[in-house]
Amino acid sequence: MVKSVINVGIIGLGTVGTGVAQILERNQEQIASRVGSKVEIKKILEKPGYQPKADINNSLIINDSEAFFNDPDIDIIVELIGGLDPANDFILRAMKCGKHVVTANKELIAKNGQEILKMASACQVDCMFEASTGGGIPIIRPLKQCLAANAIEEVMGIINGTTNYILSKMTQEGREFNEILKEAQEKGYAEADPTSDVEGYDAAYKLAILASVAFNTRVKVDDIYFEGITKITPLDIEYAKNLGYTIKLLAIAKEIDGKIELRVHPTMIPHEHPLSNVHDAFNAIFVNGNAVGDVMFYGAGAGSLPTGSAVVGDIIDIARNINYGCNTRVGCTCSMEKPVKNMGEVTSGYYIRFHVLDQPGVLAAISGVFGQKNVSIYSVIQKGQGTSEVELVFVTQVVKEKDLQASLKEIEHLPEVKRIGNVIRVEGGKLS
Amino acid sequence: MVKSVINVGIIGLGTVGTGVAQILERNQEQIASRVGSKVEIKKILEKPGYQPKADINNSLIINDSEAFFNDPDIDIIVELIGGLDPANDFILRAMKCGKHVVTANKELIAKNGQEILKMASACQVDCMFEASTGGGIPIIRPLKQCLAANAIEEVMGIINGTTNYILSKMTQEGREFNEILKEAQEKGYAEADPTSDVEGYDAAYKLAILASVAFNTRVKVDDIYFEGITKITPLDIEYAKNLGYTIKLLAIAKEIDGKIELRVHPTMIPHEHPLSNVHDAFNAIFVNGNAVGDVMFYGAGAGSLPTGSAVVGDIIDIARNINYGCNTRVGCTCSMEKPVKNMGEVTSGYYIRFHVLDQPGVLAAISGVFGQKNVSIYSVIQKGQGTSEVELVFVTQVVKEKDLQASLKEIEHLPEVKRIGNVIRVEGGKLS
Repeated sequence: MVKSVINVGIIGLGTVGTGVAQILERNQEQIASRVGSKVEIKKILEKPGYQPKADINNSLIINDSEAFFNDPDIDIIVELIGGLDPANDFILRAMKCGKHVVTANKELIAKNGQEILKMASACQVDCMFEASTGGGIPIIRPLKQCLAANAIEEVMGIINGTTNYILSKMTQEGREFNEILKEAQEKGYAEADPTSDVEGYDAAYKLAILASVAFNTRVKVDDIYFEGITKITPLDIEYAKNLGYTIKLLAIAKEIDGKIELRVHPTMIPHEHPLSNVHDAFNAIFVNGNAVGDVMFYGAGAGSLPTGSAVVGDIIDIARNINYGCNTRVGCTCSMEKPVKNMGEVTSGYYIRFHVLDQPGVLAAISGVFGQKNVSIYSVIQKGQGTSEVELVFVTQVVKEKDLQASLKEIEHLPEVKRIGNVIRVEGGKLS
Repeated sequence: MVKSVINVGIIGLGTVGTGVAQILERNQEQIASRVGSKVEIKKILEKPGYQPKADINNSLIINDSEAFFNDPDIDIIVELIGGLDPANDFILRAMKCGKHVVTANKELIAKNGQEILKMASACQVDCMFEASTGGGIPIIRPLKQCLAANAIEEVMGIINGTTNYILSKMTQEGREFNEILKEAQEKGYAEADPTSDVEGYDAAYKLAILASVAFNTRVKVDDIYFEGITKITPLDIEYAKNLGYTIKLLAIAKEIDGKIELRVHPTMIPHEHPLSNVHDAFNAIFVNGNAVGDVMFYGAGAGSLPTGSAVVGDIIDIARNINYGCNTRVGCTCSMEKPVKNMGEVTSGYYIRFHVLDQPGVLAAISGVFGQKNVSIYSVIQKGQGTSEVELVFVTQVVKEKDLQASLKEIEHLPEVKRIGNVIRVEGGKLS
């Protein structure tokens, strides 16, 4: 039975909340024709003292959570405050009140997704979170529905816009990380405290969600190995360029022989790889399925209207479910429990930049250690001959992380080696 | 009420049909866990005399269409024979028998989509056609569902793999169209009769489907202006490269002021544009929505398993609908009737290669005509000075098609102008 109006309650009128309200207003006729019902905001829950903004019907704002959650007219509650507390309680409370839930909260879904989706199932309500990963890019629904015919073998994505912006600028302009970060902060592209972005936490949350959906197993954030981009230098970017690679902060999840590997780290990928051409604050998620092969989803990974697009897409989906009486049609898809691979067992190519003394036998000494530890070399570059210190750059074949680490431990104690400048993983073809 | 088995009937065991059968076999456990029911092939309808293939349970093949359509156990019929006849009758017949339908048939959906979706609605069955456009790339469902919050403003895609393969090779190797086409035919990348691909028919069918879904209006194939790639020469590709562009066969649909423009033609796009880096037989569809901004979907546009992935994705979607009693949940979305813009009114940038006599006043004569006809120039290149014939290449600003055509008509009669070598549209930024 089609309802004439589907009512939405929004928690939090920040950047995304404002975008959602604007979209529901601006595209209301079209949304109504798609759903078969008007979709309207009934109430907006905000903190006392919230300063109203232009373009929003401020009369909808209330502070009384009791009145908000118990409004019998509200069908769908949209949580857009972020963080764990009180978002977690709000969502569970909404479900217990029989409300369907949409959230854009990556940290919450990454950490408490299991509990939340269990509660949704127990309460027979929908819980959708397309906006939690990749902003406006459709990725959760494509994985759960469009690509449902596939066993997914790999997900590899640029899912943090701030770091992609910084790395793009460093690549285009050859400047230092700190300099670009400062500029990005001034322009509002990076937060005042950039830790969550530049150290990889944000990408790890999103990868936990992506991998859970892709591999039908509940991935814990703690199972993800992650590194940020603070150690990347213009020198590494220059070497990467000459070797035919671009450096990106990638979130990578693979299923190999029933085990899941999970990692977020700066990665060199070949110029020809589709992810290599994703610039500035754009995001892209590359998926390999055992039927479809390679597919990629590209778009704005953040921002008021793009993220709002994903949230309202979820609202429309739930509204259609309400009208067709089929809520919970696609619920939690984590039906399996797959073991996570130990990081030492993960394989990858590696770029290693050594700074060594310019004397005979250095190359032999380092290659000798690599050889003993099963680390095959793909290419070597030596630069700066004639000076007291030279750069020696190795790119390895695909080798085991623990073998690489064991060899580096030994190599750094060689008398000819002054220091290990950087170690960056290499992915996306070329190496064998 | 969840069924224990959902039965599928397949019409046509060609390339895609075989892929579908393989996916349903190989990923059967996973599909069952997603649907809540086993999904099994009950019967396969083939012509008498069909030669069975390896890997397929040939005992399922029957030639008796009466027994096929009237099998009460079959829930979903999948049409994979292509073309209009008898596919059209088969699909209508399946619907009248109460079967849900999945099809990969671009020509049929492009030409008879309205009639077919009306019948689906009348019979209260689902009709899905994700595989009809972009092969394995999720695009129909993202447009109808994930991006439903948006008014779509532009769809621009590389949706024919054969021509993208040929143009990629021409670009990489600097060789002639005919030479590469012959090679592609030998390798099986192009059909023995390549007309539908290289002249743009195939892309026009797919654009009719994409534009209908994107703009919620029924687009007719006859409303689409289309040109193929047979006139593209290595010389044009070289000029494009130097000007910062890549030549791609693009299918373009835009909604501007309530009118739809529709065209398929070789197009120069800037190297930085995401579509510029889509190589070989890959497809990609770039979408601009009024909330999400730019998004792009990339993947294999053809092939047994990729197209099979899209078909089985539709089967899973319908099977979920069956189990939740919500078939027809997302039906035909062409709720509006928007006028199509006359091609003369369409605006674009243009690259024009003239061959002219090397004498004073040529540039002034040509630019003079352009000026009179409101065609602003963005850049000019002259090559081959000192020989009797020189190349003169113009790139215009964004101008009206009719103004451009009117000026060319006049310019080709100038005594200094020997011939117009080529005219290629320019899209995707840069020009104003």
